[in-house]
Amino acid sequence: MATPPFPLVLSFLILMSLSSSANSYPPRSSKHAPRFLGKFSHLHQPTDQKYETRYFEQRLDHFSFADLPSFRQKYLINTQHWLGPSRLGPIFFYCGNEGNIEWFAANTGFVWEIAPRFGAMIIFPEHRYYGESMPYGSREIAYKNASTLSYLTAEQALADYAVFITELKRNLSAQACPVVLFGGSYGGMLAAWMRLKYPHIAIGALASSAPVLQFEDIVPPETYYDIVSNDFRRESISCFNTIKESWDIIASKGEENDGLNQLTKAFHFCRKLDSSEDLSDWLDSAYGYLAMADYPYPADFLMPLPGNPIKELCRRIDSCPDGTSTLQRVYEGVNVYYNYTGTVDCFNLDDDPHGMIGWDWQACTEMVMPFASSKNTSMFPEFEYNYADDEERCLKDYNVKPRPTWISTEFGGHDFKNVLKKFGSNIIFSNGLLDPWSGGSVLEDVSETIVALVTEKGAHHLDLRAATDEDPDWLVDQRESEVKLIKKWLQEYYDNKRATFTA
Amino acid sequence: MATPPFPLVLSFLILMSLSSSANSYPPRSSKHAPRFLGKFSHLHQPTDQKYETRYFEQRLDHFSFADLPSFRQKYLINTQHWLGPSRLGPIFFYCGNEGNIEWFAANTGFVWEIAPRFGAMIIFPEHRYYGESMPYGSREIAYKNASTLSYLTAEQALADYAVFITELKRNLSAQACPVVLFGGSYGGMLAAWMRLKYPHIAIGALASSAPVLQFEDIVPPETYYDIVSNDFRRESISCFNTIKESWDIIASKGEENDGLNQLTKAFHFCRKLDSSEDLSDWLDSAYGYLAMADYPYPADFLMPLPGNPIKELCRRIDSCPDGTSTLQRVYEGVNVYYNYTGTVDCFNLDDDPHGMIGWDWQACTEMVMPFASSKNTSMFPEFEYNYADDEERCLKDYNVKPRPTWISTEFGGHDFKNVLKKFGSNIIFSNGLLDPWSGGSVLEDVSETIVALVTEKGAHHLDLRAATDEDPDWLVDQRESEVKLIKKWLQEYYDNKRATFTA
Repeated sequence: MATPPFPLVLSFLILMSLSSSANSYPPRSSKHAPRFLGKFSHLHQPTDQKYETRYFEQRLDHFSFADLPSFRQKYLINTQHWLGPSRLGPIFFYCGNEGNIEWFAANTGFVWEIAPRFGAMIIFPEHRYYGESMPYGSREIAYKNASTLSYLTAEQALADYAVFITELKRNLSAQACPVVLFGGSYGGMLAAWMRLKYPHIAIGALASSAPVLQFEDIVPPETYYDIVSNDFRRESISCFNTIKESWDIIASKGEENDGLNQLTKAFHFCRKLDSSEDLSDWLDSAYGYLAMADYPYPADFLMPLPGNPIKELCRRIDSCPDGTSTLQRVYEGVNVYYNYTGTVDCFNLDDDPHGMIGWDWQACTEMVMPFASSKNTSMFPEFEYNYADDEERCLKDYNVKPRPTWISTEFGGHDFKNVLKKFGSNIIFSNGLLDPWSGGSVLEDVSETIVALVTEKGAHHLDLRAATDEDPDWLVDQRESEVKLIKKWLQEYYDNKRATFTA
Repeated sequence: MATPPFPLVLSFLILMSLSSSANSYPPRSSKHAPRFLGKFSHLHQPTDQKYETRYFEQRLDHFSFADLPSFRQKYLINTQHWLGPSRLGPIFFYCGNEGNIEWFAANTGFVWEIAPRFGAMIIFPEHRYYGESMPYGSREIAYKNASTLSYLTAEQALADYAVFITELKRNLSAQACPVVLFGGSYGGMLAAWMRLKYPHIAIGALASSAPVLQFEDIVPPETYYDIVSNDFRRESISCFNTIKESWDIIASKGEENDGLNQLTKAFHFCRKLDSSEDLSDWLDSAYGYLAMADYPYPADFLMPLPGNPIKELCRRIDSCPDGTSTLQRVYEGVNVYYNYTGTVDCFNLDDDPHGMIGWDWQACTEMVMPFASSKNTSMFPEFEYNYADDEERCLKDYNVKPRPTWISTEFGGHDFKNVLKKFGSNIIFSNGLLDPWSGGSVLEDVSETIVALVTEKGAHHLDLRAATDEDPDWLVDQRESEVKLIKKWLQEYYDNKRATFTA
């Protein structure tokens, strides 16, 4: 059950996963390998957004002069409201993350809604090795082995964005137009890192739910599971306890003679479980996703869910008649996640094939995030972080050795407050405390211009979503604070420009 | 004669050049290809510096997971005065540039002199692909072709330093010890860029004579030759004019029947000149180097030279008896550079083989610096910058296409004042205005903590040299300003640490 939830959970964002072209590389060597949400592979968001789809010829390796083929990076562009170069119209640039760019565009309504107020151009570029932005001409070749995958790194993606923005501005004679970055989750990490590594490319970044500190020992490895657990405990202690009890019961049941059959039946799987761990992982995923998507109103982000879905899950667990078994309660609860519409007859574990192999590679190379579950504060089974396990799995799966200290060498993290205070500006780290990733992000202001916007009841980059009639006041306020800060960055930029012109 | 002087001139620093292992790759396809100072390939500085020589296993490509061999990076270390981890003793780190690290250590006396005052450790790491720090086990293989050379880039070198510092500190339990960077010329560019790209790795950088703005159209391409020319004009207008006239005379003479013989004789070459351009290039180099080494006291940096060598050169040109030909005057003058000790019987053009091919590669890939010579303000023949020529030569020589806009995409440069003011801190850009590279550096304060220290009479990273009894007051003052600023960085760092500890 000790599945590090990360790649799976960030890959939460990958609704349009690549499951349809599931690839046989790498062989799955470990049950602890992350799974993916293949079932969410359709774009079911309304897309009234208008954009053109274009492609940019991109260098495969920005940091060497090896003779490699270039690839086409896809991007979506909307210039409808743009003030243009002469009026220094801003460029709003979303740092695409691990999936098809259309899905991120559809789930980042905030950018589309505020762009007209700023006279901003909107650009959504796709991250290399995802969606259509495939090196070597096809996903089959790009994902063939460690050698072809080796340029799937965050630094290359950042350089893609830097080169792309520079060329785009040059082509439009818009060199003086300020760029504002946006990003959620891994995209938020990229947005923040862009600001750190390429401060000359963009004037500021809204990094929503970006766990930039979830590396090495910067935050305790228990953080993620503790937050998920707290999200349940705050709704109901008995609900928390029921879940906490369930793991041992599942494991014991799995060891009984007819146990797997009973578990299969109790949880309405279409096919017989191979092990009780498959069930535990399935539940673990659901709890993590529910914590991320614990939005205050009904939403169809990953799954159609009610508002405050954890409250609903706990209500179902707690309201079972006396004498209901723990397993039955857990089953009733988890239906909120896997079957809220009530249309599912039986569940398939196999809905999540290898679609997200891209993130899996990233987790096996750079994105080495330690996870653990503590005995006392977590509702999950206790486990410690063991890097050796990660390394063994990655060598087996990809023939690649992770670099566990690289991200903080490259982007910092230790002592970040002292570093960023002196060096850096114009970053918003926005987080909702219900989001289990919030613990790995920046939750306090670092300086006057590197600010943390924290909402007690927010979940995973809720602020980036389109406004709804049901938005609570604190969410409306959060978004207005963001707009205000972005305005301030732009105003300062224009003031500086004017001063330079008239100097 | 339109030789872009850059690689040659920065390679000025390469006294211990690699000439002894001169390599046949690439074939020399163009007379405009830079030449190297092979004759300076011996370490003739006093080396009373005490250090241990060690090696660090380094990753060849930090930005991909391609399966490549690691290499041994050489470094010099002195811990004699270090206060150690418990007292947060600082680490002074020189960013090695394009040559053997021992030579940079020997020519950077300033760091060795001030380290004891700070209780600092001293580290001089060698730049990859130079000296002994050869990928693929040997210079022969590393320099074999564009594929093996492809990891010789500034970004990889910076990542080397970041990884090395991080690991060194970890090994010494010195994670909290502040690092101060030093560098001259290309090494100064690396120091400044380290501060921009890895602000969490070091708290400040002294970037001496670092032409970080000598790219694209950030400064006019005429800057370099204009400054060299000014250095001569300020000493003597007739000297300036004599040199300015000489180029046409040399070219005409070269076209005469016995012209090359006459030129060979007039300039005392050991073997007959192949073309008059070889002579022009030889003179061009000398003037550029003299401008860089126009120190106020006798020095043996590249060549044994008198104090104010340009003044001496002009004195010799101007004091020839009336009726002395222009060529004879130029010959008398240039002896100050090539034969100040008077021990040379005849000159060899071939003293400069392919030793500096490493920098040549860098100039053909990332370090694309435009140069031109203007008709009116320069004493050199007029020429315009033509990128196409660079590209053609680099394709021919290395089968590699330069990336002329990459450096400013990666490190910024355009609008750098506005960018750095908001983002960045603790960089000293020190420059002497006699240095032709000063025009491509930062000559005005950018902010309170990004400061320019400019000396009117300084030359190429004079401040980094060891103190001498003959140092003029302005040089003593400049160094004291640097010490003061470094003290301030450290004090602030310690104050922050204390605040964090007691908070």
